[in-house]
Formats: sequence, C-alpha cells, structure tokens
Amino acid sequence: MSAPDPTGGRPVDPSRGTLRPLGLAEAHVTGGFWADRQRVNGEATLDHARTWMEKVGWIGNFALGDAAGPVERRGREFSDSEVYKLVEAMAWETGRRPDPARTREIDDLVATIGAAQEPDGYLNTAFGRPGQQPRYSDLASGHELYCAGHLLQAAVAHTRIHGPGELLRIARGVADQVCATFGPAGNPGICGHPEIETALVELFRLTGERRYLDQAALFVDRRGHQSLPPHQFGWSYYSDDIPVRSATVLRGHAVRALYLACGAVDVAVETGDDDLLRAVAGQFDRTLARRTYLTGGMGSRYADEAFGDDFVLPADRAYSESCAGVAAVMLAWRLLLATGEDRYADVIERILYNVIATAVDDDGRAFFYAHSLHQRTPTRALPEDEEQLGFGGGPRAPWFEVSCCLPNVARLLASLGTYLAAADGDGLRVLQYADARIDTRLADGRRVVLAVSTGYPDSGTVTVRVDATDGGAWPLTLRVPAWARGATVEVDGVSRPAPEGRLTVRRDFAAGDEIRLHLPMAPRFTFPDPRIDAVRGCVAIERGPVVYCAESTRDEPVGDLDLVRVDPGRVPHDDDAGRVAVWAHLATPVPRAWPYGEAAATADETRLAPVRLLPYHRWARRGPATMRVWLPTTTDAR
Amino acid sequence: MSAPDPTGGRPVDPSRGTLRPLGLAEAHVTGGFWADRQRVNGEATLDHARTWMEKVGWIGNFALGDAAGPVERRGREFSDSEVYKLVEAMAWETGRRPDPARTREIDDLVATIGAAQEPDGYLNTAFGRPGQQPRYSDLASGHELYCAGHLLQAAVAHTRIHGPGELLRIARGVADQVCATFGPAGNPGICGHPEIETALVELFRLTGERRYLDQAALFVDRRGHQSLPPHQFGWSYYSDDIPVRSATVLRGHAVRALYLACGAVDVAVETGDDDLLRAVAGQFDRTLARRTYLTGGMGSRYADEAFGDDFVLPADRAYSESCAGVAAVMLAWRLLLATGEDRYADVIERILYNVIATAVDDDGRAFFYAHSLHQRTPTRALPEDEEQLGFGGGPRAPWFEVSCCLPNVARLLASLGTYLAAADGDGLRVLQYADARIDTRLADGRRVVLAVSTGYPDSGTVTVRVDATDGGAWPLTLRVPAWARGATVEVDGVSRPAPEGRLTVRRDFAAGDEIRLHLPMAPRFTFPDPRIDAVRGCVAIERGPVVYCAESTRDEPVGDLDLVRVDPGRVPHDDDAGRVAVWAHLATPVPRAWPYGEAAATADETRLAPVRLLPYHRWARRGPATMRVWLPTTTDAR
Repeated sequence: MSAPDPTGGRPVDPSRGTLRPLGLAEAHVTGGFWADRQRVNGEATLDHARTWMEKVGWIGNFALGDAAGPVERRGREFSDSEVYKLVEAMAWETGRRPDPARTREIDDLVATIGAAQEPDGYLNTAFGRPGQQPRYSDLASGHELYCAGHLLQAAVAHTRIHGPGELLRIARGVADQVCATFGPAGNPGICGHPEIETALVELFRLTGERRYLDQAALFVDRRGHQSLPPHQFGWSYYSDDIPVRSATVLRGHAVRALYLACGAVDVAVETGDDDLLRAVAGQFDRTLARRTYLTGGMGSRYADEAFGDDFVLPADRAYSESCAGVAAVMLAWRLLLATGEDRYADVIERILYNVIATAVDDDGRAFFYAHSLHQRTPTRALPEDEEQLGFGGGPRAPWFEVSCCLPNVARLLASLGTYLAAADGDGLRVLQYADARIDTRLADGRRVVLAVSTGYPDSGTVTVRVDATDGGAWPLTLRVPAWARGATVEVDGVSRPAPEGRLTVRRDFAAGDEIRLHLPMAPRFTFPDPRIDAVRGCVAIERGPVVYCAESTRDEPVGDLDLVRVDPGRVPHDDDAGRVAVWAHLATPVPRAWPYGEAAATADETRLAPVRLLPYHRWARRGPATMRVWLPTTTDAR
Repeated sequence: MSAPDPTGGRPVDPSRGTLRPLGLAEAHVTGGFWADRQRVNGEATLDHARTWMEKVGWIGNFALGDAAGPVERRGREFSDSEVYKLVEAMAWETGRRPDPARTREIDDLVATIGAAQEPDGYLNTAFGRPGQQPRYSDLASGHELYCAGHLLQAAVAHTRIHGPGELLRIARGVADQVCATFGPAGNPGICGHPEIETALVELFRLTGERRYLDQAALFVDRRGHQSLPPHQFGWSYYSDDIPVRSATVLRGHAVRALYLACGAVDVAVETGDDDLLRAVAGQFDRTLARRTYLTGGMGSRYADEAFGDDFVLPADRAYSESCAGVAAVMLAWRLLLATGEDRYADVIERILYNVIATAVDDDGRAFFYAHSLHQRTPTRALPEDEEQLGFGGGPRAPWFEVSCCLPNVARLLASLGTYLAAADGDGLRVLQYADARIDTRLADGRRVVLAVSTGYPDSGTVTVRVDATDGGAWPLTLRVPAWARGATVEVDGVSRPAPEGRLTVRRDFAAGDEIRLHLPMAPRFTFPDPRIDAVRGCVAIERGPVVYCAESTRDEPVGDLDLVRVDPGRVPHDDDAGRVAVWAHLATPVPRAWPYGEAAATADETRLAPVRLLPYHRWARRGPATMRVWLPTTTDAR
C-alpha cells in the first residue's frame, strides 16, 4: 500500500466472491450514452458542486475552528459529508482521466479539511467546538459517524488512485478515534444514519487493519435492538427495529436501509459470514419483488424518505430519491460480486438508465432529488441560481438545502467504468453494454484486451472484439438481460439463440475475434403486479433497459395525460420518425361535483391516435411539462 | 351582551345568510348514534384530555411566568391552543348539559390561563418571556396568532353559554393587543397558521366591536402575497401563494387552508363581500370535486399534511387528518348558512359519519390523527399510556405529541346540536337526522317544537313530529341527501317520491302532525372518477351516509384483503345476519421476483364467496386488523 493501485482502483475491493471487480485503469467507457454523461460530470458537475459548496459555506465550515468563540457554522448537520463525497467524486474522476489541476484542487480541499481535525483524530464541523453540542451527543440525528464514513470513502478512493497521502492520514485518524470510542468496551452506540459500516470495511480492505473490519461488524450487530431513541416514524426509520440478520425486507428510510445493507454484505464477505450474506440478499430480493419502482427507484414515501409497505408504490408521489438509486447500485454491485447472480447486473442497468440518467440535466448543473413517475401539473421554470428548499416535483434544481444526491451521483458517474465488466473465475464477464475498452488480466495473469462497440441502448447490437490476448483458452461471458426475450448471439458468423441470464464462449481467443449479441429492442408493454394499487389498470412501455413515458409540453402537447387510455390490444411501435408510440384514446370525463358515484364517470372515447413517448430519463428537459410513466388502459373502462 | 344567550349559544352566529343557526338550548340530540358519542365525549374525553394536558405540562406552562429566570416550557409551540380548545369543548358541553362541577373546572382553567397574560394583553407561553424568542419573531411557524384565535373561540363559546366573564376579559385583551400590533399602520405580518381570522369575526359578532372584523378582513386580504418566508413545501403550504380572492382550489396544508377559508367566509358574510364568498365557495366546490376522499376526509399527503394535486387521493397513505375533518365541517356549515345549498349539509353528514365518528374510540380515550382508507399490515396493539410520536396507521392512540385533533373533535361533538336544524326564512329546516328535540322560534317569533325519531343511520325512516306550534302556516323542510335515490315522503298517510335536495311542507301545523321520510338504505356500489389513479378499477360500498370497509381480524379473518376481487355484477346485500356483504373472489397472485412483466400476474380466482363488511367508522376496534375501503374488482383482471 505504498503506491497507487496499478489497476486504477475501484470503490469495492472484496477479498472473496464470485466476481473480482476491475479498476478504473482497466475499464473505460469510450463513447456513447455514458461517455457523454461522464464527460459532463467531469467538466461541469464537479465544478458546479464545488462552487455551490463554497457559496453556501459548507467548505468554509472547516476553517471556522480557528476563530475564537462560538462559530457560525452554515448548512445542515451533515454538510461535511457532501464535501467528502465531492472529494471522492473528484478522486475517481482523476482516476478515470488524469488531470493535474483537479489533483491539486483535491489537495487544497484535503488541506482545508485536515485543518479542522482535532489532535485525537476527531473531525466534524458541527459538534464539539465552542458553542456546539458535545461530540456524539446526538447519535440519532447528528450524522457524525455518517460523515466520518464518507470521509473514509473519499480517502479510500484517493489512495487507490494516487497512493497514500494526507487524506489517508486524516481518515485513519478519524477511523482510529471511532474505533477507540465505539469499540467493544466503549460507547455502545450506533449512528442514526448507517454509512460508517461499509466505509470501515473498505478502509480495512485498503489498509489491512483488522480493527476497522471488527468495528464495522460490531456496528452491524448492534443495530436493530432499538437502542436509538424512539423516532416519530418508528425505529424502522433507522433500521433499528429488527437485527440485520432477522429482517426479511428493507424498510424505513431507504438510503439508511441500503447503506446499512451494503455494510452488512461487506462484513459478511470479509468475515465469511454466509448467514449474514443470505439474510441481506433475501431482504434485497423481497425489496425488489415488492417495494421497487419500475425504474428501479426505491422509497415511496416523502414524509420519511422511506420504503412503504409491500406494493405501496404511488407513481404520482414516488419519492425514489437519487441517493437511494446510488445506494441500490452499491448494494446490487456488492451482491453481484459476492454471488455472481446476473439479476443483480440487470438491476444495476435498470437503475442507471432510469434513475441515475434521469437525475442529471444535460448541462450537468441541475438535478432531481426525488423522481416522480407522474407529473400532473406542469413543472415550474426554476431560476438557475435558486437553491431548492423542498424535494418534490420537477424540474431539476441547481442546488438543494439537502444536496446529498448531487455529489452522490457524481461519484457514481466518475467510477462507472468499474461496473462494465468483472473477472469471473478464470475468465471475464461483460456486465454492462457501452462503447468500452477493457484491458485487464485474468486470474492466471494473462492479459486480455476487449473493445466493446454498440449503439446501446438505442441499438441492441453489441460487438465484443478481442483486441489482445496472451493465448490459451479462457471463457468470455456476456450478460443476457432478463428483459431480452429472443436475444441471439453470433459467433464466427453463426447465429443462435442466447440462453437466459448469460452466455459464455470458452476458446483460445485470437486478436480480432468477435462475439456479437443481438438484443431485441422492440418497444414492449409492461404490466404491474395486481397488488400495486397505485397503477392498477395501467400499462408501461419499455424498450430495452429504458422505461418510457408520455410527456406533454408546450411545443409537443399531448393534451391531458390523465385522460389518455391506451388500447392494450395494439402493441407499441416505432413510428415514422423513429419514435416509440402507442395507440390511445383521449377520454372525456363527465364533470361531476362529487367524484364518486353509482357508475364510473364513463369516458367518451373520442378518438384513437398514436401518442409519442420518450425515454423517462429524457423528461423535463423541454420546458414546463406533465408526464406519465404508467398509462391507464381502456380495459379499465366500465 | 350582559347575559348568557337564552338560546344557548352556537359556534357560528352570522348577521346575514340564508339560514340562521340554532343555539344549543334549542336543538338537542336525544338518542341514538350521536347521543352515545356526545355522552362519551362529555363523560370521558374531556377528563382524559385534561389529565393528559396536566401530565405533559401544557397547562402548567401557563404558571411558569411566575418563576425567575428562563422557564422550562414543555410541549410544542402551539400547545396553548390545545388547552383553549379543551376549554371551548368544556364550555359547549356545559351548554349542552349544565354541570356546575365542569363550570367550576372551567373557571379554574381560566384563572390559570389569565395569570399568564401580560399587562398589555399579550398571552402566549412560548414567546416573550426570559430565555424565549421575542413576541412575533417567528410568525411563519410560531403559531402565536393561531393560539390567540383559539383563545378567542373559547371565550366566545363560554360567553354565549355563561355570559360575559373573566375569559371574555382575557380574550378582549388579547384581541385588542393583536389589533394594536397588526392594524393597518402596524406590523403587516400574518400568522403561518390561519385561525385568528374566523375567531376575530366571531368575537366581533359577540361584542359588536367593529375593529375585530376589520382586523380579520385585513389578515384575509394580506394573505397570498408571499409575505411569509419561503417554505420547503412552497408558499402554498400556508396558503400564502395566491390571494384568497384569486385562488381556485384549496391547497397546501389542509387545516391551514380550511381555517383560512372559514375566516374568509365569515368576513365576506359580515362585510357583504359577495365576490369573496363566491371565490371561497368555488374553491371548496372544486376541492370537493377533486381533492376529497370518499369519507369526506381531506389532505392526502403526510409530508406536509396537505392537499395533493387534483385526484391524488391514495387510500393506503390517506392523511385525512381529524382536524381537517372538523375544519371542513366548519367551512361547509358556514357556506350552508350563507347559501342554503343542501349539498353542504350532505358534506357535513359524510364527514360526521366517516371521519369524526371514526376518530374516537368507543371509550372516548383514544383517537385517530390520520385516517387511512387502506391498512395493509395489521394495526399494532398500543399501550394505554403511550403518547404517539407519529401520526400514521392505527390503532387509535391515547395521546399525540401534536394532539390538536383530540380537543378539536371534542368541541365539535359537544356543539353538535347546532348542526341539526336551522331557521329558514319564515320556516325551519331539518338538516341532520337523529333522535332530537328542537325547540325554537320562527323568524316571526312563533314557537315551534319538533321531535325527530329515527334509527338513522341503521334505518332510513325519519319521523318528524310537531310537538308544539303557535299556529298559522309555516314551511317545514327536510333534507333529502343526494345519495338517497328513490327516497319517499309520507304526509297524512300519503306517500310520494321525495324531490332531490329537500322537501318542504308548508301548512298550518298542529301538534301531533308528522312527516315521515323514507331514505333507501340498501347497500350500494360506488365507483371513483377514473382520474383517481389510486383506486382505479376498485369499488367501494356505501349504505346511507356510511362508507363501509372490509376488515380482517384474528377473530373474523377474511384473508389477504389485497387479493379480494369483487364481482361488480353482483350488488352488495344484507346477509342472513343483517351484515352488509359483497361477493368476491380471493385471487392468488403468481410469485414473481420482479413485480412488472409482459402480462399481469394473472390471478387464479379460486372461489367466489361473500365478504362481510362493516362501517368504516367501526374499523380498528377488534384488535390488530387489516382493512380496505376500496376493493379491486374482477374487471381489472386481464
């Protein structure tokens, strides 16, 4: 650990598991959908976030310790963590694309942060200074250990990219102070917001210091015993209602639950605790089956930013926080590495295209915090420099009083290369499809270089070419998404049906060898489980991994989207202009003074016409808009 | 104003309007559904609330001003108002049923409250004392004028029942201080929570002091200009987004919006401002048509206790706060008195039977704050002495950190007599059906005594007998609820169809004359407007004014209510045991790892069986329970 990781580093580096992740120097997105977004992230979002964090005082908070007397700290109690997430995002960005100026910027930020560290390692700008509450006096909502966790993650990223330095020294001081305070014989508390758990495991993976892993395991075991104070939303709000091993589903505050689950998987993997791994996998599986939006978004309640009961998934009040999307990718990735099960890669793809890609505006300077699947009243026009106080509705806002999502999405986009492929036994698995260059070594040390070229997700054809290989047989595996019914694979000019889940070609590859995957990209209807009351009698349209929506704007009005009735007997199609469309009636409701009566206010279906759709991730980019993902069908009419 | 009101007093006493309300001495519930609830309210709830308010320190706060140094006040910033609402409820109760002990209790409470009044009239235990924020330093969320409003309402009630006394003196001091501070040349602010407006108008009606009315009008006019600070939920949260005259619908925090509307109607009526009256009536009408639950409940969002967009009415996350029910009755009553339009009496009936009657436990010692229309997971068993921190789910709780609803429902129940009937031109209108005695004078001074006898709402037969009359013709009008299709009326043994809305019999009545109304009480299906996504493809069952629900308990399990599929071709019926029942299939969902797919997970409909229903107001009284008001139909199956 005396030099940068030659493979470029990766966010998650488990010592065991079915798959081994690649580092950012081994896997590059070279073009297409995600390359555009990575470019905007690096060129605009990071500076945008830095500028706002200066403006709202969150960076300045670190310098306030020098002042005599009570300090006038700005921002919410967890604002330190946003600065740390930004440093992490910048670190991954310099791993993806070396940039000396950015590296110096990080060093300056690290110096600013480090100046606020106390001699015993403690570091938090909201507690312990004159006029502030004492350290660890409000574990339930103070977010001190949460902030520490994000500092550790930033340090892990920076160290893997640039080698050990000042940030790692700071982080180890913080981690050591945490272990000294909250160890087996110390303060038996836990943080109201999990995050420290997964961070401590990663710091253990980086440094080999076993006590970090032990402390993480202790935090995981301590949770679920109602040791935090009663909360107005119940102990489930901070996953303190049921021990991690006993729970059957994720519940309460979605980001809290997902971060905790990540930490639990990390602990399980490093300690060989398969019971714990199975417990968390089971919770996530049930969450996917009953508490997840079509977009992969999680969290259906605004009041507590929480999972609802099973099948409570309102489209018009979907919360689906961007941070929960990031956290769900983190959890699915950990479970994918641990188990190798393809469906976790499917989940990652779904969240990336439908939550993460939706979150960021084209210019990288405005963001969704919450992701509604149904906008009934037109989105507002929002001034460029206006901080948003609330979370709801569109359009994307440049900044939020609680701006956790913005640097969270930024760190994910900067490190996206790591999700493209993974080493698999003695071979390699391609997991996500994008123009990409993969240059890595197999388990036995042989070098393999792949070039992936595709128009994905517009096109379903993916060509994986071997550009270099050291010779000898090895297996190359491509994911076949579960939605891709009828996929075919072409090897040596011979086409055959692709199996479900994944296809493996084992051979003595030569440079120039190609495998071509054809994924069917016809738009398709998707129906909901009948227990999801909120979208009963509705249908959605998907195309490949992308969820579509109907949007009505000034320039392309569709009329009142709440009156559209899709004819489920006519499949969605690509229209003359290459746009996805569905045939629909525009219903005319009978005006009523009371909206309940002896018979449904039967709609006069006045005309059948095609309604153009667009990818959900493209919505709210064309001025004030209404929008629906789930479209009522004519089946509902009585 | 030197003596008690001989008619017993009423909460709303407008100087103009189509109907004139009766006082509590003129209209008594003598038996049946509401008599039981009034008895429990008087015998249990008032003492229960008093005991809790002592225990949690809200009454003690009034005595803290005597202490030297900073005071340790308990409870939320608006807790004074709960004490005032309790005093108001106790005052109406002593009007309904004289009780010297209760009257002395009120006097003691008034003495306690009065001791906290400052020499200039200001009275609030949360502001202005040593260590507290200055007066009126946080109009947005400090609730000072809101608390003052409830004090005024308590004083109005007490004075109308008992004549002028100490409480009126205190209240006039408060009102005068408010007028002096917030008058035309003073502080231009408004309170974040409306309530002072309607209270000032009522104090004007009681005292004749014009400046109270002028101040109320000023507060109404000032609102809607975004003069309060930006709120995370938007200015609409406190109805400060759009001027009252310009708005088209109620929006934002439901109780705030409804109280403001009450105040605006009061101002409009007293100042002859018909434009303002029409504006508010239009807002309420649109709210009823698009933003109201089948129960009459209002407010569909937990996060901000707010109205949602049009047609956003989720059953499983219905907020429908009890206080919003009380406030909607208040508004409907004001509009009914002003306009005489029958549908407002229908709304009052709907809210009384389905929100107010649902809110209170049988013993009068536990309450719903929020009214879900769909309980997916069984309600908890709640300890009798446990204060509830949150608002959600059942069962009813004995106390809440925010216990606004409890004394609010209590004051409504104690004053319920006033809603039974009203003077109408030269006659009398019976508005709500209960065993009742009405003893009043017509506009020309003639005495009329009516006895109403009925088994309502179990039975639909209502007999109105004239027990005394001074002779000469006068019109007696009975409301015909809009739901009562096929109602008939029997006069002198002759039966004929009842007209829609109301029926009037004008004659020279003699003692013993009877009019008998027959309202059809067969259970009926009710279908929702197709724009209410949350209940698409579902049906509800109503019987008379009562909404029914399916409930599954340990002793009477129905199975998974979310799998019940009602056959809309078979009308609901009374079963052998006299219970309402519907024919339904119990669907079996196909287990799926992902709840969205090519076709709906088609239900195997295994058996057709009757499902017993019970009045919604009876739910959550038989141990842990799941519940649905809206039942999916077989029509939805694909």
